[in-house]
Amino acid sequence: MAVYTEVNDEELNAFVASYEIGEVTSFKGIAEGVENSNYLLGTTTGNYILTLYEKRVDPKDLPFFLGLMEHLAAKGIPCPLPVHDRKGEVLRTLAGRPAVLITFLTGLSVRRPQAVHCAELGKALAQIHVASHDFEMQRENALLAPAWMNLVNTCGSGADEVEFGLRMELRREVEEIGANWPKKLPSGVIHADLFPDNVFFLHNELSGLIDFYFACTDFFAYDIAICINAWCFEIDGSFNITKAGAILKGYEKVRPLKRREINALPLLARGAAMRFLVTRLYDWLNTPEGALVKPKNPAEYVRILRFHRAVESTAEYGLPVREKKKKKSKKSKKK
Amino acid sequence: MAVYTEVNDEELNAFVASYEIGEVTSFKGIAEGVENSNYLLGTTTGNYILTLYEKRVDPKDLPFFLGLMEHLAAKGIPCPLPVHDRKGEVLRTLAGRPAVLITFLTGLSVRRPQAVHCAELGKALAQIHVASHDFEMQRENALLAPAWMNLVNTCGSGADEVEFGLRMELRREVEEIGANWPKKLPSGVIHADLFPDNVFFLHNELSGLIDFYFACTDFFAYDIAICINAWCFEIDGSFNITKAGAILKGYEKVRPLKRREINALPLLARGAAMRFLVTRLYDWLNTPEGALVKPKNPAEYVRILRFHRAVESTAEYGLPVREKKKKKSKKSKKK
Repeated sequence: MAVYTEVNDEELNAFVASYEIGEVTSFKGIAEGVENSNYLLGTTTGNYILTLYEKRVDPKDLPFFLGLMEHLAAKGIPCPLPVHDRKGEVLRTLAGRPAVLITFLTGLSVRRPQAVHCAELGKALAQIHVASHDFEMQRENALLAPAWMNLVNTCGSGADEVEFGLRMELRREVEEIGANWPKKLPSGVIHADLFPDNVFFLHNELSGLIDFYFACTDFFAYDIAICINAWCFEIDGSFNITKAGAILKGYEKVRPLKRREINALPLLARGAAMRFLVTRLYDWLNTPEGALVKPKNPAEYVRILRFHRAVESTAEYGLPVREKKKKKSKKSKKK
Repeated sequence: MAVYTEVNDEELNAFVASYEIGEVTSFKGIAEGVENSNYLLGTTTGNYILTLYEKRVDPKDLPFFLGLMEHLAAKGIPCPLPVHDRKGEVLRTLAGRPAVLITFLTGLSVRRPQAVHCAELGKALAQIHVASHDFEMQRENALLAPAWMNLVNTCGSGADEVEFGLRMELRREVEEIGANWPKKLPSGVIHADLFPDNVFFLHNELSGLIDFYFACTDFFAYDIAICINAWCFEIDGSFNITKAGAILKGYEKVRPLKRREINALPLLARGAAMRFLVTRLYDWLNTPEGALVKPKNPAEYVRILRFHRAVESTAEYGLPVREKKKKKSKKSKKK
């Protein structure tokens, strides 16, 4: 939510002149993106976003993120398109930082998504998954069970400050989720951070998907689980099965789910809850008072984690149960 | 440099619907303006800035600021124009804050202004002064000698942390400036904060003037003094007489200065230096580490203050001396 690196008018004019995008007409630092500095750049040809990558993004991952956006945009996914400079480059340097110019997407993120938004989201998520089948780069998901356990251990007794006994609960839970994690499920590129902030709508139609800087190669169904957690819990903590059903049905209009993906959902959703719980917990305990970025309270994800642990049937996610006979065996497999 | 108050999509859509500006197409918090929350709003009719006034702006001053912008814009000054809603109102409430929608100005602020920019600035400053002659509202300048002394006293020994002995120097200096302050000079509305950040250019032509939230009723020449301090000192602390001359000559193309205004410049410039020195000093000493807004180092304005104290002739500001015979009497009047 800030601009960490300042770009002055001289640097900017020289930078923009190396693209075929016309002349600068306006330039504003925008309060978006926790990880990077972002500017809204107006030129005589339209609007662009200039992103300067700060320390939390590893420059060696940038070709993956930029290549992915270009790949998806070419297939009609409404994601930002990295703009090539006159020499054909997309990854540049500006004010001493890796820098990229991308196209501007219209639309507004919704604070309280409705089922109609969830259906659109599910469809777009499946489109990303399908569109990336011939994207050749890979990026490992660095935030899985071993990383969660590291963060739980690093936070130490800090977890008990959020709720007494949480530290032990998280350790047990990470072990159990890790031990039962699926070995193999349909995989490919996942967004891995598709929260409502990162999705724009115009008139209830999805108009933009942004912030691909956690994208990686993993199970498609894990991406769905992340979205269910981020989109389907109400402010009072209750789970909205209509919204979850809308995500899943919207998804299946584009890419039908395999039986084993659906069966894995409760465990994947526990994992997805844990992934955001541990990073929020860490930030909660380690962000100095008055810092630029206010840390999010991890308690929300403690409740989400417990919700999924108590799920007894995938019908609770709002999809009709297809093969009733298999319910029992699926459950025993899970636990 | 931040967004302090969040506005969600529901509040925003309802707010925008009460104006005749079309439908929302984009909305970004912008990192601009130390005092307020600012958003760049795109609609089907163009771009606007939405400002939410935070605690440092007194709501009772808003009619003055908004009335002034409207008055100046109507006279062709390139300043933001407050937009009226369907009921004719400009001052509204949004997310619990006083809120105003203003037009968007194109252009870029320049980090290192050249003489060509200073000439444009001088002209625009005189245009503000002339255009406001029939603006009927008044607002007292709250940041004059008594307020400077209060701030020096509040900072106490903190001034000596910037430079040993500074506290006593400031007390003496405020007393001397206050005692010699002109009783009467041509007056009217002044911007009072026209730093390079607040002025936009396109192709070296001035395209916008923003941030009227320190505007008040005071001596026109004091506004010039503020600009000389903000625009004519190089990064190494040296004074650029060409730039100062460009401001003054640009100004006089629109509004010729009276002899007594020119004669008062060295003292007004000391006062203008003191005004920013004391507020920066206060912020420097009282802003917690890691705060959203980084305080500016007051030392820059200590050097500027001393420069003006040493000025022996107004010729040092780059204007040709008009009446050589009067130089001596002018000096004795000043000291």
